[in-house]
Amino acid sequence: MAKDKKVEQITDMEVDFAQWFTDVCVKAELVDYSGVKGLFILRPYGYAIWENIQSWLDRRFKELGHENVSMPLLIPESLLQKEKDHVEGFAPECAWVTMGGSEELPEKLCIRPTSETLFCEHWSHVLHSWRDLPMKYNQWCSVLRWEKTTRPFLRGREFLWQEGHTLHATAEEAIQETEQMLEVYAECWEKFLAMPVVRGVKTEKERFAGAERTYTVECMMHDHKALQAGTSHYFGDGFARAFGISYSDKENKQTYPHQTSWGASTRIIGGLIMTHGDNNGLVLPPAVAPIQVIVVPVAAHKPGVLEKANELLAALKAAGIRARIDDSDNSLGWKCAQWEMKGVPLRLELGPRDMENGQCVCVRRDNFEKVPVALAELTEKVPELLDAVQQGLFDKAKQNLDSHIFEAHSLEEAKELQEKHGGFIKTMWCGGLDCELAMKEKAGMTSRCIPFVQEHLDDVCPICGKPAKHMIYWGVAY
Amino acid sequence: MAKDKKVEQITDMEVDFAQWFTDVCVKAELVDYSGVKGLFILRPYGYAIWENIQSWLDRRFKELGHENVSMPLLIPESLLQKEKDHVEGFAPECAWVTMGGSEELPEKLCIRPTSETLFCEHWSHVLHSWRDLPMKYNQWCSVLRWEKTTRPFLRGREFLWQEGHTLHATAEEAIQETEQMLEVYAECWEKFLAMPVVRGVKTEKERFAGAERTYTVECMMHDHKALQAGTSHYFGDGFARAFGISYSDKENKQTYPHQTSWGASTRIIGGLIMTHGDNNGLVLPPAVAPIQVIVVPVAAHKPGVLEKANELLAALKAAGIRARIDDSDNSLGWKCAQWEMKGVPLRLELGPRDMENGQCVCVRRDNFEKVPVALAELTEKVPELLDAVQQGLFDKAKQNLDSHIFEAHSLEEAKELQEKHGGFIKTMWCGGLDCELAMKEKAGMTSRCIPFVQEHLDDVCPICGKPAKHMIYWGVAY
Repeated sequence: MAKDKKVEQITDMEVDFAQWFTDVCVKAELVDYSGVKGLFILRPYGYAIWENIQSWLDRRFKELGHENVSMPLLIPESLLQKEKDHVEGFAPECAWVTMGGSEELPEKLCIRPTSETLFCEHWSHVLHSWRDLPMKYNQWCSVLRWEKTTRPFLRGREFLWQEGHTLHATAEEAIQETEQMLEVYAECWEKFLAMPVVRGVKTEKERFAGAERTYTVECMMHDHKALQAGTSHYFGDGFARAFGISYSDKENKQTYPHQTSWGASTRIIGGLIMTHGDNNGLVLPPAVAPIQVIVVPVAAHKPGVLEKANELLAALKAAGIRARIDDSDNSLGWKCAQWEMKGVPLRLELGPRDMENGQCVCVRRDNFEKVPVALAELTEKVPELLDAVQQGLFDKAKQNLDSHIFEAHSLEEAKELQEKHGGFIKTMWCGGLDCELAMKEKAGMTSRCIPFVQEHLDDVCPICGKPAKHMIYWGVAY
Repeated sequence: MAKDKKVEQITDMEVDFAQWFTDVCVKAELVDYSGVKGLFILRPYGYAIWENIQSWLDRRFKELGHENVSMPLLIPESLLQKEKDHVEGFAPECAWVTMGGSEELPEKLCIRPTSETLFCEHWSHVLHSWRDLPMKYNQWCSVLRWEKTTRPFLRGREFLWQEGHTLHATAEEAIQETEQMLEVYAECWEKFLAMPVVRGVKTEKERFAGAERTYTVECMMHDHKALQAGTSHYFGDGFARAFGISYSDKENKQTYPHQTSWGASTRIIGGLIMTHGDNNGLVLPPAVAPIQVIVVPVAAHKPGVLEKANELLAALKAAGIRARIDDSDNSLGWKCAQWEMKGVPLRLELGPRDMENGQCVCVRRDNFEKVPVALAELTEKVPELLDAVQQGLFDKAKQNLDSHIFEAHSLEEAKELQEKHGGFIKTMWCGGLDCELAMKEKAGMTSRCIPFVQEHLDDVCPICGKPAKHMIYWGVAY
């Protein structure tokens, strides 16, 4: 009996946000810990969320002309070292294979932390003519980065992601690709995951190792910390030169192509939890939810209840809704708590009295509102309710974001605002590294991005007093 | 100009089958070699074939109630050692991670060669009650086995696969699952890939490390060698006992569950090439082909040709056919050779004279038959032609299989038949390991399987003369 599973209480997010997050990950059965620190198991429910995100993105990538490929897991040390900035950024956190079978390898191999070097080596073999461009590739895989501190979804030594890698004839075309793919992430997070984003450019300090420009979408969590939720990089022709990738152009001249890469990972599921979750557990937007409606028969032993509940289930499924029934022998209270923990957007309750009244009761996960629905209108009303939950979650998150962007005109003010409210602190900025480092050292904030949508807050950088170049967002990030 | 790509001649399969195979893999743009021996790059065209196979299998797995999960990439040495037979089978070919960042790891970690041990460890955490059974999991990933000799698709140090892992309350249920999943492979290979299979059971010697029973589907290649194309294993409760996986049954008694696993890999693409390919390159069954119809305009500069060709393309796409147009500036001869190399099932040619006649010409990849098709009947006739190609390929492969199964009544006869014809040599067998080893040593053949469909060829084992237990197939395998 002791081993029988039960829905246990989770820590309140106001008491300990980090513990609340971990509790949700485990109790909603999203992850399990493996025997290796920082390598997490994605359980069926967690993986189903990832599959839904994958399927949205993969469809969109393909519509935009990208093709999937599979690159090797291992990178020889010498290959990783070909691009100077890149190896400096990644070598310190590589996991190294030094033995194959019982033999020591002549050269150690790192498990890919990202695959730019592999794509570049491949392209140096297969790119010949201007006719071969653009090459727009993507790969779904896992990568390893040997981090010190690890947390489910947010920071793992292994994580699942997609990495897009493209080659173009011109810088303009490559930059357009970089911006387009950032917009794909923004659209997916906002429309599919109900997570509002801030689009912008990273400072030079925060750029991807080896990139000329890094774009980012930044989200705000419940606790008013920032989450970098997807990045897109423009490399110029730097990697192409380092790896000897060239093609003969229309004038038959050997030319270097321009390159991009862009990636998003299971980290976004961590963001999803921290954007929508509450003290009852996970809350999932209907669009991404593996189960959109859970049908719970009340007093299921009473004649006709189970039959009718199964009839409703069949009707919902036939209408294209991802529905399931809980006809287990668990108590009603257990069932409600369990499906709330798992964040199912709508719970449909049906008991003998409902049947008499020709109705059922839909309980919204986002605000616990109980909505009676006439059985005759079921397949019309449920999609409306799901849309309402999706919109409700977006609006709430947008409200959280908008009400936590604060304007500051000095480093001290920025620091005070962050300590008091959290969120994004917006200031002007001279563009200098020293001011960025000062903000980190004195106010504990990193630059999140230079937003695409700029405002003129002041003429000068509030840190050094020199002329301002941009408005920038600062924050404390996951 | 020298770097401009061209369709080069490939080696004839009759001259050098192994070289022919490698040529097809490279020239059809399925794979590229990476800097690490045995780690291959799946290029867009090769990966698209795998995606189609994946999508068929994944849909079927889910219909049968399986859920996808993601397990870690790395297995601690101590975990791998928990099941004696299993570690003996896999440890010699593991790749080992010994360093994380710049630090030596306290325990070396092997890159998964297969994930039984990881699933078992996870199950020991999450299985509690009979209510949790069955647990039917699957994972799509890559695995590493540090092989000495490697070839694209057929034997890689890294390969993509799926591995299903399930837990059941009873042995009967687990065995039923094992058999059902073998049948899923058989159905996919036969119906989707047009590859006829022999279904059977492996001998004890050829079993998966740690399994009580291994089922297999075996295919026959063009050169009359065998290819093991998918296996399904029943483990009993051996792993459960070794890993301490138990649950409280309905009588509240701690009980060990019964386990299965089953896997198929990108190896099947190697089989696909060697089953259907010819001296012009790859030949793909329409069901799995990334491009089913390539539209090739003839004399495309003549008025109206390109417009009409694009119109046909649009009509084909609207009819749900995976069609593409080649409107490049390459010559007609180059285009034909290129799309033949890539194995596209139908080439649709349209020129000015065809337009006058209100027709186009469809050229079948399987037999080069040229079929005039009235434009008015296009979307009706093309699916019929694709079906005919699919069936034609299956029939040809079935004919190759059926005509290369030979009956032998002595080891010498078995040897002679294999040397003369290749194929499967069927004999009776006593069930003894010594006879199996003798067949290997003296006739160079391994046991392929004990087919489900048995015949009585003799009363005794032709090797030792003892009473026969089964009819068995022998062969030379990839």
